[in-house]
Amino acid sequence: MVALADDHRAEAAPRFRRVAILGTGLIGGSVAAALRAGGLAREIVGHAPGGDADEARARGLVDRVADDPASAVQAADLVVLAAPIPALPGLFAAIAPALADDALIIDCASTKRSTIAAARAACGAAFARFVPSHPIAGGERHGPSAARGDLFEGCAVILCPHAQMQPGALARARATWSALGARVVEMDPVEHDELFAEVSHWPHAVAFALCGAIAAGPRAQAAQRQAGAGLRDTTRIGASSAALWADILLDNRDAVLRCAGGFADELRKVTAALDAGDRDALVRHFDAASRWRRGLG
Amino acid sequence: MVALADDHRAEAAPRFRRVAILGTGLIGGSVAAALRAGGLAREIVGHAPGGDADEARARGLVDRVADDPASAVQAADLVVLAAPIPALPGLFAAIAPALADDALIIDCASTKRSTIAAARAACGAAFARFVPSHPIAGGERHGPSAARGDLFEGCAVILCPHAQMQPGALARARATWSALGARVVEMDPVEHDELFAEVSHWPHAVAFALCGAIAAGPRAQAAQRQAGAGLRDTTRIGASSAALWADILLDNRDAVLRCAGGFADELRKVTAALDAGDRDALVRHFDAASRWRRGLG
Repeated sequence: MVALADDHRAEAAPRFRRVAILGTGLIGGSVAAALRAGGLAREIVGHAPGGDADEARARGLVDRVADDPASAVQAADLVVLAAPIPALPGLFAAIAPALADDALIIDCASTKRSTIAAARAACGAAFARFVPSHPIAGGERHGPSAARGDLFEGCAVILCPHAQMQPGALARARATWSALGARVVEMDPVEHDELFAEVSHWPHAVAFALCGAIAAGPRAQAAQRQAGAGLRDTTRIGASSAALWADILLDNRDAVLRCAGGFADELRKVTAALDAGDRDALVRHFDAASRWRRGLG
Repeated sequence: MVALADDHRAEAAPRFRRVAILGTGLIGGSVAAALRAGGLAREIVGHAPGGDADEARARGLVDRVADDPASAVQAADLVVLAAPIPALPGLFAAIAPALADDALIIDCASTKRSTIAAARAACGAAFARFVPSHPIAGGERHGPSAARGDLFEGCAVILCPHAQMQPGALARARATWSALGARVVEMDPVEHDELFAEVSHWPHAVAFALCGAIAAGPRAQAAQRQAGAGLRDTTRIGASSAALWADILLDNRDAVLRCAGGFADELRKVTAALDAGDRDALVRHFDAASRWRRGLG
């Protein structure tokens, strides 16, 4: 893993003649808004199922709406996939025949092994211009209405280079994310998926479970009235999209289940110490935890 | 449970000739700072073990430091106990013989059943002027340096009236907390302890366990580097004082263990659905959770 913070915005910002945004929700819409704010795209074309693309056009995020993914990517020199994980294999297959020869292709998915496999299977020669990307941005709000041009300012974006990738494609992807304000980090895709199971995917499951247990208990309503800042913070990501996170967890299932096992062990130790009234053991566990948390700065 | 939001600051703010603050950390120091900011106390006396009371005086939170709890409460018409839970029985016993006949006594502990029992056992006739109080304020910072006069602005303070309480004492306690900016809520102490196990005590254990599992795993350092806003929020209270929270959880052990059981059940269901690749079940669990969380507003 190499942090490239020093290169932040060092590369000349690329200019694109046409950008295709496939999926115009929070992430895709924010990429569009940030590209436009930076003057990086002459034209932005959006495609999304449902009403998201029309809403993105109404909000000025994209210039026009394409009826299907293949026509969206026509003559585009930047293609941004920002659709939910289960939609990606179908999207790669749909756009592959229509991609321009110089198209840079980036995605925004929270998992990288499966995305790379899907692109490899569908994209043919264009796979060399696919740069797997994971912007560490988002939140519990979603849809085009949540999009904003500064979403990536100061965020990390993880790029996972693969063996068939053209070096020029990697450089352009880095320059593009840097131009959007992001701090670019490169990481092996297997390491990426293991690490993000730990710092993002499993913590979402924990926040959902904490909310779910309170919701299923006898004090669901009283708890809503008396929730303080601590519970609000601890459960904030529990307001995220259920479907989106179910898909992410399923896509990264093995790594997430390893985290689930480690967490269940820790929880068992804490509960056993509490049950036994073993203050020393409780303090020891909490102390190791809080030292790690304080290390986050 | 009756929310008295309408009464917020409706009562005339009381004036105290002398306030004794026993425990001058974040909470006690903030009570002192808020009383002073409101001009509610002619003199504020502090007592605390270690260097906390001297630091509180150096920061102007208290006017003078008393060497022992009994001399701190001498002639005080407001006594504020803001010490850790295990210290409370000893403090009640120490101050009981020295309390002024008109002293209002309030505490700030996160559990109320045991505090009431300790006061009842030690305070004699003065128990009628003890108003169990739990300000829902605090955070992962502690000590006199974290104290601030606006800590209670907009916070809830739970008062747990008991059968022997003088109505006048309850009214003065309500007026005092209201004058510090708090929204006063009355609640039965058993219901209080059950509810706060759910919305505060157990969530702290979960946040500690989430941090502890990551800290004990192979990616402890990488996770610190790549933690995004979601993990930061979810684990924020995991930076809290290990000893303080061990004592709170142990004091409210039975209620907390009931929450631990409900949470473990929910976690088992989520993990089983993930393990089985059952997307519908995962979405169903997460959906119930996120609906509850969105209800927090």
